[in-house]
Amino acid sequence: ATGADNDLYINQAVVFIEDAIQYRSINHRVDSKSLWLYRWYYSRICQWILSLTITVILALAFVETPSSLTVTSDVRYRHPPWEPPCGLTESIELLCFLVFVVDVSVKSYLIGWEEFCKTKWLMAYILTLIVSLADWVVSLSFFCTETVRIRRILRPFFLLQNSSMMKKTLKSINSTLPEMASVVLLLAVHLSLFTMFAMLLFARTKDGQQDKEWVGYFRNLPDSLTSLLVLLTTANNPDVMIPAYSKNRAYSIFFILFTVLGNLFLMNLLTAIIYNQFRGYLLKSVQSSLFRRRLGIRAAFEVLSSLEETPANAQELFVNVGDLFQVLQKVEMDSRCKQAIIRSLKISSCDRLSAAQFQKLFEELDKEAIKQHPHSPEYRSHFMQKLQFVFGHSYFGYLGNVVALANIISICVVLVMDADKQPSERDDFFLGAINCFFILYYLLEMLLKILAMGLKRYWSYPSNRFDGLLTGILLILEIATFAVYGFPHPGWRPEFMGLLSLWDMVRLVNMLIVFRFLRIIPNMKFMALVVTTLLDLVKNLRAFAGILLVVFYAFAITGIMLFKGAVVPMGNIRPSLQQVVLLTSKKKCDFLALLNHFQAIIIYHLCYLLSFNLICRWAKIYFIAWWLISSVIWVNLFVALLLENFIHKWDRHCHREPLSDIEYQRTVELMFRDVLEEPTEEELMERLHQHPHLHLCR
Amino acid sequence: ATGADNDLYINQAVVFIEDAIQYRSINHRVDSKSLWLYRWYYSRICQWILSLTITVILALAFVETPSSLTVTSDVRYRHPPWEPPCGLTESIELLCFLVFVVDVSVKSYLIGWEEFCKTKWLMAYILTLIVSLADWVVSLSFFCTETVRIRRILRPFFLLQNSSMMKKTLKSINSTLPEMASVVLLLAVHLSLFTMFAMLLFARTKDGQQDKEWVGYFRNLPDSLTSLLVLLTTANNPDVMIPAYSKNRAYSIFFILFTVLGNLFLMNLLTAIIYNQFRGYLLKSVQSSLFRRRLGIRAAFEVLSSLEETPANAQELFVNVGDLFQVLQKVEMDSRCKQAIIRSLKISSCDRLSAAQFQKLFEELDKEAIKQHPHSPEYRSHFMQKLQFVFGHSYFGYLGNVVALANIISICVVLVMDADKQPSERDDFFLGAINCFFILYYLLEMLLKILAMGLKRYWSYPSNRFDGLLTGILLILEIATFAVYGFPHPGWRPEFMGLLSLWDMVRLVNMLIVFRFLRIIPNMKFMALVVTTLLDLVKNLRAFAGILLVVFYAFAITGIMLFKGAVVPMGNIRPSLQQVVLLTSKKKCDFLALLNHFQAIIIYHLCYLLSFNLICRWAKIYFIAWWLISSVIWVNLFVALLLENFIHKWDRHCHREPLSDIEYQRTVELMFRDVLEEPTEEELMERLHQHPHLHLCR
Repeated sequence: ATGADNDLYINQAVVFIEDAIQYRSINHRVDSKSLWLYRWYYSRICQWILSLTITVILALAFVETPSSLTVTSDVRYRHPPWEPPCGLTESIELLCFLVFVVDVSVKSYLIGWEEFCKTKWLMAYILTLIVSLADWVVSLSFFCTETVRIRRILRPFFLLQNSSMMKKTLKSINSTLPEMASVVLLLAVHLSLFTMFAMLLFARTKDGQQDKEWVGYFRNLPDSLTSLLVLLTTANNPDVMIPAYSKNRAYSIFFILFTVLGNLFLMNLLTAIIYNQFRGYLLKSVQSSLFRRRLGIRAAFEVLSSLEETPANAQELFVNVGDLFQVLQKVEMDSRCKQAIIRSLKISSCDRLSAAQFQKLFEELDKEAIKQHPHSPEYRSHFMQKLQFVFGHSYFGYLGNVVALANIISICVVLVMDADKQPSERDDFFLGAINCFFILYYLLEMLLKILAMGLKRYWSYPSNRFDGLLTGILLILEIATFAVYGFPHPGWRPEFMGLLSLWDMVRLVNMLIVFRFLRIIPNMKFMALVVTTLLDLVKNLRAFAGILLVVFYAFAITGIMLFKGAVVPMGNIRPSLQQVVLLTSKKKCDFLALLNHFQAIIIYHLCYLLSFNLICRWAKIYFIAWWLISSVIWVNLFVALLLENFIHKWDRHCHREPLSDIEYQRTVELMFRDVLEEPTEEELMERLHQHPHLHLCR
Repeated sequence: ATGADNDLYINQAVVFIEDAIQYRSINHRVDSKSLWLYRWYYSRICQWILSLTITVILALAFVETPSSLTVTSDVRYRHPPWEPPCGLTESIELLCFLVFVVDVSVKSYLIGWEEFCKTKWLMAYILTLIVSLADWVVSLSFFCTETVRIRRILRPFFLLQNSSMMKKTLKSINSTLPEMASVVLLLAVHLSLFTMFAMLLFARTKDGQQDKEWVGYFRNLPDSLTSLLVLLTTANNPDVMIPAYSKNRAYSIFFILFTVLGNLFLMNLLTAIIYNQFRGYLLKSVQSSLFRRRLGIRAAFEVLSSLEETPANAQELFVNVGDLFQVLQKVEMDSRCKQAIIRSLKISSCDRLSAAQFQKLFEELDKEAIKQHPHSPEYRSHFMQKLQFVFGHSYFGYLGNVVALANIISICVVLVMDADKQPSERDDFFLGAINCFFILYYLLEMLLKILAMGLKRYWSYPSNRFDGLLTGILLILEIATFAVYGFPHPGWRPEFMGLLSLWDMVRLVNMLIVFRFLRIIPNMKFMALVVTTLLDLVKNLRAFAGILLVVFYAFAITGIMLFKGAVVPMGNIRPSLQQVVLLTSKKKCDFLALLNHFQAIIIYHLCYLLSFNLICRWAKIYFIAWWLISSVIWVNLFVALLLENFIHKWDRHCHREPLSDIEYQRTVELMFRDVLEEPTEEELMERLHQHPHLHLCR
């Protein structure tokens, strides 16, 4: 092996180890220039630029023309939003597209032609870019007056293709689609049979008084379908059956049967199916990550071993420790891990490493970082030691919780007492004085704790950080209040001054105090378990949240295009209904507001209001699709993941006693460590020999 | 052993085997007279009388004074319900109580004093009876005019204590209560913190225009709590945030946070916890049933073996086959099983049976009954054979499905066309002619199938039974129509005649045709799986349904007592609201109608209407308790069971290929057969030695 070859091998090993650390695929070009490009492409700055570009192109929707990002959502009061001049957002868009073009070309080059043909995601990426650029040209040639902009709906694709987790999750969801489709088909059959039944049951009669049910809900086929579909979401639950029920109680049997079968059985069946499909999802994904890591390490070993002069008949390959040191110095990785590896390498003090030893060395990567809190300061004075014992004791923390509870209760009492008072009658003295006292106590508590534990140890606990930060903010607010409005005294009702009125200041302080009360969470065992489960869930849900964001974005943009100008301020409708119209019109333009409307109640309201409007049919289909995807499928996915996470967590929680002073950095990998299977040597070598660019000697 | 002893032992063995068959406990007295009493008590007629008594006492609520079992539920139109004279329902009640007194005395005597002291259920039973009888005496001494009848709320207890499955399930639910309570506590903390936040956020302002949110939803502490609690059920989802949202979009963050945390996380956490707790529930219950069966058989073996003269030093005990024959003749059991056991006993042809052989003999009880359909008739004529091939082929069944679909579609088309016609314009000729043709086809199909398969084979398939019955009813209806109204011809619009008008007849026929379309279910694989899962679920859910019934009953009776006379017909409220009042008033009096109101929407409506009424506070608490129990806990239990059942089923479905001609009688026992553990001999013997009345020689 020549010197250049040596350098190449070292660089290959470096890149493979970095791949292993980041759980990346190793199927990329491995010549010197490509390796340089590869490391550059995956460098922090490049990836950061790419993420920024994606964020910018997605955020453009908030400033582009039909956006409605104003403070109020009421069409009657709000000012017309700022309209950017033609060419401004378009030129930002072009910049983003150029970045994406560079991204896709580098990516395609790095994996090589053979792999490129297999990667449908990359081809879709290129196609999306071409369509977007063509649409952009059309847009500019019409001077931004064209009505349909396809490229907007395509935008979330850029987010999707950039995350391997999201692509994996999408594949998983895709594989459950057949079963979900079966249940949805079943639901459709259920719905249509019951619709026919309902139309026969609640037919028009000769007596006009008797057919209220027919007039209200089952006038014709679309009406009947809608009524029962909305009943499936329980949004019109008692209303739909009242006319029939007050005619004859026996009619309720029909509605009970429909609800029990549809809502209780079929809807929950969907949950069961999705849970059943996703039971192994997390485990499988962690397992494949582990395989990628082991494969990267093994590939590094193989290329490093070819540096060694091995006898042709040798059964085992070895790696020189010196080469490994060289590689380790070049690898970008967590410094704690790197030092641990170098340390254990020095301790073992052998010249050559076998494949197993090499693999074992890098197991440091899988280990959980054990976080040891710094020690408390050791005081010499006997008095100080006693103080330290008293204020470092957990009972002092409990006392703090009790005081916080007392504060909450006092605020609650004042709120109840002041509930019906006019703002001008309100006396802020009592609350001001109380809060002043409590905030002083909080400050004292913080200082005493710092005294007992030392600043470093105090700060190393998340609960203390939370506590300290809030206490600091409260103190600043209180000082600001006193500076502006003076000290509280009876009849303390100063006029408005400065940025916030006194009342607003007091409210803000109270809210922060309520928020600070959350510090009790770690002290309650079950609460702590629930909260850590939820935090874990949030980590595991990132991919799902991303996909949801993609769906949201596509729906919001489609909604804007479909219903542009469909809703205008109306004066002749009762206020409450008008507000619904306003809300639904907002809903289409402001996709953030959609978040809290997974309930399909809105289909009902909208279609009730727009029932004489041509647009209603489209709105119905749009909202039914939205309900199916966001409410039915996504919520069920969420439940499935929560079940999976919680059950694992619960099992672990019951088995082991939590250690008091050591905090584990929880990761999904660790949750499943006991059940993960290590890949065998044969599997690794087989995969290595399939590598399109790396040609091993053996 | 004397002759009397011999008879005693034989009788003991008979009773133990019957215990094993019925999965009953064997801890009862075993002397001759007690055995006779025991068999009499568990005889079909006695148990039937007991069930009847329970049904009667529960059904009394429908005819007792505050009942409202009338056709219409509308207070304005309905006739006053029939009021039974004082003493009528009371004497029926007394009869029921006497039966219960007999029941409890026999039960207590049979298990003996020692066991009685351990059985809290029996003591509660006695206490309930004493309280009920005392209440009954009070009732009569007031001539039925007393206001509160405690015994009515206690009635469902009689149902509860009579079913061992329900008692077991209740125990299970009881053991999940601590975790459920934790989550409910968490929900309460969540709710109260957010309520305080909301009250601070949406406080009263000096500008009357700005505090719509305060006026509408957060006026004081109870109002705020209610608003947010109802938001947790999503019943007031968009409405509650609209005033704030139209003031400033940022307020929606508060509602989004509340909904996501409360509704998405905490509510689903409840599902996860209940599922986690109930994962093993079915398995455990089946396992304990298996233990009871093995124990009963073993006890029978032990008493029979003491009939044999065994050498004192013999290691193994044996049972004489002759004795066993004697026992088998006396045992009441499924005749198929009995014959199978006798057959295998004759085949083995040995004189004495060891414990293992004895146990093995009775494993016939666990076996699934394999149902073999009778064979088709064998025709000699070549033509008949061909006919048989054609009409016995599955494609002929598919053709029938296609025809049924065509019929459904034709009905649908007619319904859509007739949707807006006046009843007087409607021409029933078209539908009449079409249905006539289709019903003739159905008749023909049935006859041809009977020809091809033979009557016995045809009738042995459930789908054919369903088909045949409906075809028969349709035929009768059609003939009746023609007999009364003559054959259809254009302009066929006869006047009303006989019981039903022609239009009602046609509607009934159409409904039956829609119902008959369900015969396609077994032909669709996924649908069949879902339907069998649901049927299994219904079997396993009987205990849960019973407990739900108990809760319903108690709530309904409490509701009647609490709100008696609270709602009267009002003329000055808008009709829609009045209907809600009517519905809610009915809801309290008619517990069947409660079934389809698990949604808490009603809390909202009721409290909105009664908000100036003193009764509102109580109504709120009543309905919140109802919502928690029926909607939150019961629905989650249901989901947990469905998940459990479905996942087991799904796994089995994927593993084995269904056999075409053999139908398995599905039972829970069989579902878990692969994972059940056989109890060891030591466990059985230890339990036998703990028997309070049976004293084994060894």
